[in-house]
Amino acid sequence: MDLITRHSFLHQLLLFSLISLSYVSGTQFSFPRLGALRRTIRSKPQTGSISSVSEDFETLFYNQTLDHFNYKPESFTIFPQRYIIDSKQWGGPNTISPILVYFGAEESLDYDLFGIGFLRDNAPRFKALQHRFYGKSVPFGSREAALRNASVRGYFTSAQAIADYAAIIIHIKKTFSAKNSPVIVIGGSYGGMLAAWFRLKYPHVALGALASSAPILYFDGLAPQVGYYAIVTKDFKETSERCYETIRKSWDEIDKIASKFNGLSILSKMFKTCKKLKRSFDLKDYLDSVYSEVAQYDCPPTYPLNIVCRGIDGAPKRTDILGRIFAGVVAYMGNKSCYDMEEFNHPTDETYMSWKWQIFRILVGLGSCFLTCSEMVMPIGHEHSASMFPPSPFNLNKFIRKCKSLFGVQPRPHWVTTYYGGHDLKLILHRFASNIIFSNGLRDPYSSGGVLENISDSVVAVYTVNGSHCLDLLPEMKTDPPWLIKQRKTEVRIIASWISKYYTDLIVFRDRT
Amino acid sequence: MDLITRHSFLHQLLLFSLISLSYVSGTQFSFPRLGALRRTIRSKPQTGSISSVSEDFETLFYNQTLDHFNYKPESFTIFPQRYIIDSKQWGGPNTISPILVYFGAEESLDYDLFGIGFLRDNAPRFKALQHRFYGKSVPFGSREAALRNASVRGYFTSAQAIADYAAIIIHIKKTFSAKNSPVIVIGGSYGGMLAAWFRLKYPHVALGALASSAPILYFDGLAPQVGYYAIVTKDFKETSERCYETIRKSWDEIDKIASKFNGLSILSKMFKTCKKLKRSFDLKDYLDSVYSEVAQYDCPPTYPLNIVCRGIDGAPKRTDILGRIFAGVVAYMGNKSCYDMEEFNHPTDETYMSWKWQIFRILVGLGSCFLTCSEMVMPIGHEHSASMFPPSPFNLNKFIRKCKSLFGVQPRPHWVTTYYGGHDLKLILHRFASNIIFSNGLRDPYSSGGVLENISDSVVAVYTVNGSHCLDLLPEMKTDPPWLIKQRKTEVRIIASWISKYYTDLIVFRDRT
Repeated sequence: MDLITRHSFLHQLLLFSLISLSYVSGTQFSFPRLGALRRTIRSKPQTGSISSVSEDFETLFYNQTLDHFNYKPESFTIFPQRYIIDSKQWGGPNTISPILVYFGAEESLDYDLFGIGFLRDNAPRFKALQHRFYGKSVPFGSREAALRNASVRGYFTSAQAIADYAAIIIHIKKTFSAKNSPVIVIGGSYGGMLAAWFRLKYPHVALGALASSAPILYFDGLAPQVGYYAIVTKDFKETSERCYETIRKSWDEIDKIASKFNGLSILSKMFKTCKKLKRSFDLKDYLDSVYSEVAQYDCPPTYPLNIVCRGIDGAPKRTDILGRIFAGVVAYMGNKSCYDMEEFNHPTDETYMSWKWQIFRILVGLGSCFLTCSEMVMPIGHEHSASMFPPSPFNLNKFIRKCKSLFGVQPRPHWVTTYYGGHDLKLILHRFASNIIFSNGLRDPYSSGGVLENISDSVVAVYTVNGSHCLDLLPEMKTDPPWLIKQRKTEVRIIASWISKYYTDLIVFRDRT
Repeated sequence: MDLITRHSFLHQLLLFSLISLSYVSGTQFSFPRLGALRRTIRSKPQTGSISSVSEDFETLFYNQTLDHFNYKPESFTIFPQRYIIDSKQWGGPNTISPILVYFGAEESLDYDLFGIGFLRDNAPRFKALQHRFYGKSVPFGSREAALRNASVRGYFTSAQAIADYAAIIIHIKKTFSAKNSPVIVIGGSYGGMLAAWFRLKYPHVALGALASSAPILYFDGLAPQVGYYAIVTKDFKETSERCYETIRKSWDEIDKIASKFNGLSILSKMFKTCKKLKRSFDLKDYLDSVYSEVAQYDCPPTYPLNIVCRGIDGAPKRTDILGRIFAGVVAYMGNKSCYDMEEFNHPTDETYMSWKWQIFRILVGLGSCFLTCSEMVMPIGHEHSASMFPPSPFNLNKFIRKCKSLFGVQPRPHWVTTYYGGHDLKLILHRFASNIIFSNGLRDPYSSGGVLENISDSVVAVYTVNGSHCLDLLPEMKTDPPWLIKQRKTEVRIIASWISKYYTDLIVFRDRT
């Protein structure tokens, strides 16, 4: 009796990957990924196949409206939006069994399917239908056409996305005769932001939200722009002071060699780059991505940040700084014939080697780039003096100019706080709003933009000191440390209490309203 | 220290008048007006001039975004949105003096300016800036061009309207250095719906809302479609059983005469119509509008419904049914050389006789019609057996067909409940949401779609048995009956308690968030 719903649909492209501002920023460091799910050690593919969890899934389509907010002739364009339902464990129609809905985030579908562990593990407990929606359907033909067309990609916005969610959930409740079933929405990272915002905007559709690793405060000056990299730095420093120092010193070393005659060739050889480096920045950006990724996804049982530092610290005694850095890369990325400096923008994992998939990833990057260039303007920069990274402050004006030249429209850096709020969160929401869990792991760099303090009795922060990005949403594993088990239990207990209160209310009010 | 804000701007056209479904429905009765402000006896213009209240007003402009929800190139079109501020009594910048914001409804500006009495009367008490915004500015040139262009009028939606409000209020708070000033939004009728929805969608912008006579439940089957006319009927019956009976019998009389040879000429003469009737329906629709209007605006001290019934009942002894009906019309509309059967669609009051204004009113009608033809689908019909009106049920399919042929787009009758909610209101909102007053007068036919029961401690219903449409928003008058004085006092006390709690919270949270 459990219902997990997950979707991507028109917005799948948004939901997938807030990859790489390097598309936009040229010489600004790549935007850290807001991926929901765990990155495994890159050299060792994740165990656990998707097929084993997907047998219960049923794929359905909903006729979705292109533009919910206007009444122009083209607003009425309908596209088939795919969603996935697992109703195997559900209590059935005309019961009040809960419905769990997963809001997709920005990772590959395979990762996403794997990542709904929390819902599947806890579904029987809540006696809920298991839904899950996602769709590959895009209006106006192919994804490529949609993203390349300025008029079409203009509909890729979070407000349209959650309006889609609302329409689909209402449709599902009607279809399943589940009018009185409480709906809990769950998402991680960008999906977590959508889940929290959904509870605020559509309380009549969702009873509550679990927003895992949702940096809803990383907008419009709410959180310091250095927050992200300050945590990456702290994670490294805590793991190994020596490793941290090596990385801190490495940037100057790279510059020093790059400035030599034939310096880029030397660096290219040293780091076994697949193509000769055209500028030292690309190497630095690659390393920045490695460090960010292992900090963000520093999960048990493998703890990839440890792996990188063991590589760096454990290199033979006389290895120089850049030799150690390369040893760290090899330890994490695996021993390869060459290393693709663009991998973090267009990954080349064996899983995604097909041409089609590559194109898809590129388009996902473009979609994500558009999203960050429109409303999801997260000013993440390096400028902290204690950072292990070289300074690279976020430059809003430059960012706006680049976005305008790329997409012809300019970002609205204040829109997220205008539409969803964020300033004075506790003051505003502690007498308004209810039933939101903001879960975080404090080793996740994005926790610097997360809600880490209880807002009220039912808008609460559940965090772990040792957790990383969206860890609580992953399936339970035998190797899970006690603090992770406890976090998930706390979340389940809180959600169960919302549902229990709702059932009480239902008895009181159902015949009177 | 009081702040009243009121606006219309791009959406002025929407906000003005949900006039006349007769544009749409052909032989369905005209849609009752959702006008915020009191209709006086038509033959005696309202006393009290606008100039006397408008001296303190300052007119300003805001560069408003055409489309908040999409990122298409045209979404970024900027138009100057006019708003009006009265800051004479305000506490000043860097204080925490409240800001009262009035959301315009669908009446002429003159009526609207008159109607902010509640805010002006209570402003000193709240020590608030007095704002008030309204703008005549419409993107893409003239109103006519905007409304005739399917692409432009498509942006006339409530979601865009309240996003505009949010942007302007945030802008005003910044301009006036009023970051911590609590904002109370106030509106009547359609403006009241916007105020209530605004508090739900933008709690970070408005601390609370006074939604006067806001029929937020007159959508999507929430309230019975006969509700409106059932109350009109009740109002007449309570005032005079004889008057009610005369009206009830009059429809058949009209049909009987109309079916005679030269019947329409007889009726035209009998009712001194300005143009010869082409069908009896137009007379019936006119009478329907008279009865609806006097019921909706049956206010002290004149009580126009009484005037109509005194006309009907007080006609010379041997006057027949239709003679009595006409006497009622004359009593209310005044003794005229002829009666314009289209007056309720395109009023010809002396005040609005200029050609320009006429054109404006027609366009307002078109704008309102578009609004009811897009999202504000209120299924108001006659089918009650105890009604004093002939049966005329609301036919959604016919309505949709007519809207499509008029505007090329079809209504979304479920959108209001999808975006704003409405089903199971108490169940949903009693643990979510706060600080909304739903005020109603039970003699107002629209109260049949209003919230008449407390939802929680701070989402409350304040109604009067004898009140009519938006009566509480009008300026205090010496002739106000005790129940009206009490209603306003209750509203003021509740709003004061929200602000007081907010100030307490501010001390607790301001330095911690």
